[in-house]
Amino acid sequence: MLEIAFRPARASDVAVHRQLAAHLGALVETGRLPAGTKLPATRELARALGIARNTVTQAYDQLVEQGRFRAHVGQGTFVASAAARPGRGAPGARAFAWSGLLSRRVRGLRLHGVRRDDLTTDFPFDFRGGQVDTGSLPAKDLRWALAHASSPSVLRRLAAHRDPAGWPPLRGEIARWLVARGIACEPDDVVVVTGAQQAIDLVARVLVDPGDTVAIEQPGYFGAALALGAAEADLVAIGVDGEGLRTDELARLLAVRATKLVYVTPATQCPTGVTLSEARRRELLALADRHQTPILEDDYDCELRYAGPSLPALKSADTAGQVIYAGTFSKILFPSIRVGYLIAPPPLRGRLLLARAAADMGTGVLEQAALATLLRNRGLERHVRRVRRVYSARLVAMLAALARFMPEGTRWSEPRSGHLVWVTLPRGADGARVAEAARGRGIAYGPGEQFFADGRGDGCLSLSFTNLSPERIVEGVEGLAAAVRATLGTLPVARPVRTRIRAAAVAGRGSR
Amino acid sequence: MLEIAFRPARASDVAVHRQLAAHLGALVETGRLPAGTKLPATRELARALGIARNTVTQAYDQLVEQGRFRAHVGQGTFVASAAARPGRGAPGARAFAWSGLLSRRVRGLRLHGVRRDDLTTDFPFDFRGGQVDTGSLPAKDLRWALAHASSPSVLRRLAAHRDPAGWPPLRGEIARWLVARGIACEPDDVVVVTGAQQAIDLVARVLVDPGDTVAIEQPGYFGAALALGAAEADLVAIGVDGEGLRTDELARLLAVRATKLVYVTPATQCPTGVTLSEARRRELLALADRHQTPILEDDYDCELRYAGPSLPALKSADTAGQVIYAGTFSKILFPSIRVGYLIAPPPLRGRLLLARAAADMGTGVLEQAALATLLRNRGLERHVRRVRRVYSARLVAMLAALARFMPEGTRWSEPRSGHLVWVTLPRGADGARVAEAARGRGIAYGPGEQFFADGRGDGCLSLSFTNLSPERIVEGVEGLAAAVRATLGTLPVARPVRTRIRAAAVAGRGSR
Repeated sequence: MLEIAFRPARASDVAVHRQLAAHLGALVETGRLPAGTKLPATRELARALGIARNTVTQAYDQLVEQGRFRAHVGQGTFVASAAARPGRGAPGARAFAWSGLLSRRVRGLRLHGVRRDDLTTDFPFDFRGGQVDTGSLPAKDLRWALAHASSPSVLRRLAAHRDPAGWPPLRGEIARWLVARGIACEPDDVVVVTGAQQAIDLVARVLVDPGDTVAIEQPGYFGAALALGAAEADLVAIGVDGEGLRTDELARLLAVRATKLVYVTPATQCPTGVTLSEARRRELLALADRHQTPILEDDYDCELRYAGPSLPALKSADTAGQVIYAGTFSKILFPSIRVGYLIAPPPLRGRLLLARAAADMGTGVLEQAALATLLRNRGLERHVRRVRRVYSARLVAMLAALARFMPEGTRWSEPRSGHLVWVTLPRGADGARVAEAARGRGIAYGPGEQFFADGRGDGCLSLSFTNLSPERIVEGVEGLAAAVRATLGTLPVARPVRTRIRAAAVAGRGSR
Repeated sequence: MLEIAFRPARASDVAVHRQLAAHLGALVETGRLPAGTKLPATRELARALGIARNTVTQAYDQLVEQGRFRAHVGQGTFVASAAARPGRGAPGARAFAWSGLLSRRVRGLRLHGVRRDDLTTDFPFDFRGGQVDTGSLPAKDLRWALAHASSPSVLRRLAAHRDPAGWPPLRGEIARWLVARGIACEPDDVVVVTGAQQAIDLVARVLVDPGDTVAIEQPGYFGAALALGAAEADLVAIGVDGEGLRTDELARLLAVRATKLVYVTPATQCPTGVTLSEARRRELLALADRHQTPILEDDYDCELRYAGPSLPALKSADTAGQVIYAGTFSKILFPSIRVGYLIAPPPLRGRLLLARAAADMGTGVLEQAALATLLRNRGLERHVRRVRRVYSARLVAMLAALARFMPEGTRWSEPRSGHLVWVTLPRGADGARVAEAARGRGIAYGPGEQFFADGRGDGCLSLSFTNLSPERIVEGVEGLAAAVRATLGTLPVARPVRTRIRAAAVAGRGSR
């Protein structure tokens, strides 16, 4: 007999025969009941499902009426052929014409070098960004924090929570957390958001009109380009070198164009890993002050520093109140937890909250409550210390493996923080062919063009060193090097001379 | 001695003296260390905080340099007056001019009749919408589900989750859940979103260009007007009567204007509680087909039906694939959980996911995982059955209390589902004065103008019957009636004749 795993939803107000008809209809539409299949007799199916025979009869009747079943007297009931019925995707049905209805902003959106199926594919050597060491997760602390959140008394308060600015205890903990970044703020200054991505999106909503000029880093975080692009900003890419954002380039832009916003990642430039130097920070703030241009500081992984001095956030030196500050817990906990924060100057806050209400009315409070507990009992601080040790060893392993295996002419950044290394392949390497060859070896990474708003970046790639163990990193980089060599079409260099380049010469822009 | 509760973040890379300086700076900026306050001697503070004296000295020096402290030889260190220092909000500091930088779309956003402080105020009689009975929360089921999510093996999978369409097991459960709504869909058709609000916002992003005509219900859900307004839609309000959306009005609009989208709440019209009749459903689908206009069906509280027949979702009859369907778990669990879903026709899905990535990259996975468990083990179904009983009794209590206490000339809807009753005050009642008088009695509700895009709705109000016990509802409605009477300036009617009006005559539009 056919596998018809129907379970009536007794609590539903939809009559069971209608539920069954919908279920069977779904099986037909999705091809699990192919055309021509003979349905079980009504008595038989009723017995198998533990429901009344009349219910099954009614359901069959509805499906016959819909053209999904055919009933032959004396033979039984069969699934009709698709041509005989209307419905989505069925041949002959008039498909609704959506393409002419798409908004201009969504027609213009692109995410370069990402295939939808990549999102759901597992790669043995996954060097794509935004992932964490799943072996270091604070499961016990998190379990405790979630148990606390679902205790009856706390849950009652959580269920009554309605402030789109966020769960008050979490806002208090974030204000304290930011003391370490040199930022003096009050709980009321904090807006909890669904990751740093939403912080960028909300700022774009509040500040950017179609055609407004926004300066971004290049190479730079693709999510920022995506959110600002969705607001139809005119994105102008500013170069990055060993000191971070090139303020000389920015100065030229600001001199000739009214610029609505400068987006910058000072702690760990995404994707090169460069830290914005003190001199550049001063220049950036002075430029923003001179031209009265707001800055959006994305301090997304400031906690992950392995060497070198850490500088306080740009925001800490913002005396005029023109820096909007964004941070997140996704990089230190895990990306799918989606809790970040925004510190906005008071005049902007009301508008941000209104835009936030329009967007989604707030971030899930269970995750907010869990994070508040992790911050209060210092579980997050312990976790940061732990992953810092883990990731530091992985960074060392990756840099050593790159030096050992990559063909001559390859260059890479040498970050001291964050989670990404930026690699520039030797001249002549074809990004698409390398990606294909790497996929064949089970290797995935961030394609260079993802980090360029203008489609360049072809010979570059972004490697996350936080996902894999040092041993797997070495193995993966060796495979990547082989993939590169295979596409270069030249004989592999047996023992490449390491082209040691400081982060100064990053990517795409070469040594300009 | 002063209360300086500083706790060094040892794991931070910011030197402790910098942390202390930031902390003290924050105390100054927020007025907790007022100008003129004498600071403790460095030795004293160092001992109290358990840190090195030199650390305190360095911090004080920084604050003197910043102009926040003054040092007087032989007298000690004092907080400087605000006038002497730069910084946010300080008199004399040049405040950054944000107002000229706001985007057009956010300048146009309004949320009528809502005060920011209302969000954080508790009212003894809170009839505002979107709240649940916190006494009926499924704490035990939720605790179990969250414990499951944070078990090491599940947590590892959750932490590696990266699909913006949502956690796959939850998408599967939602597809099954929707069978009861007559909707045949596959897990791949489901996009998990942060509440129905985000569903509306994403659809607006994908379909609406500035100036595009969008039809909404009036009175209607303010969140829809907010999200569509944020996309700069030209909102056209279509009236609502006892059968729901007036398709005759919609027909006239579609005949004269290209309309990008029709937003509708068929199961329980928000805020009147009317169910869209079968005849109107057929007319709506026929109109949408004739004019090739997409429909966004917000099925936000379809599970909460207390009487009368339940109709399958409009989407179940959508053979052409032009209905986008949105649902949520916020109304049945609690509003701050922020998990909803979108069933979009396949041609729209890629664009929706791109818009989604731009917006926030996804909904928090811990809440998604918890919901998947609640759906799988039928905890949610049990919960729906439980709250349906609770809310049904509350609806009865509210309708009876309105009949007993409200002054003559008051009309109200008599919903058989949802969580709201819509009340139209007698002619001559002044909404703002009633709201003030009600606040004085500890009563809050949804102001009528919140549900009108054009600022009308003054004499109307929306009462949620899900928040309070039947006894408190009676007490609150009695207080509300007294508040209305007090503002009407006429003698209260001792025993008002109940003006019994079927949902047919709803609100604002009177009996037109």
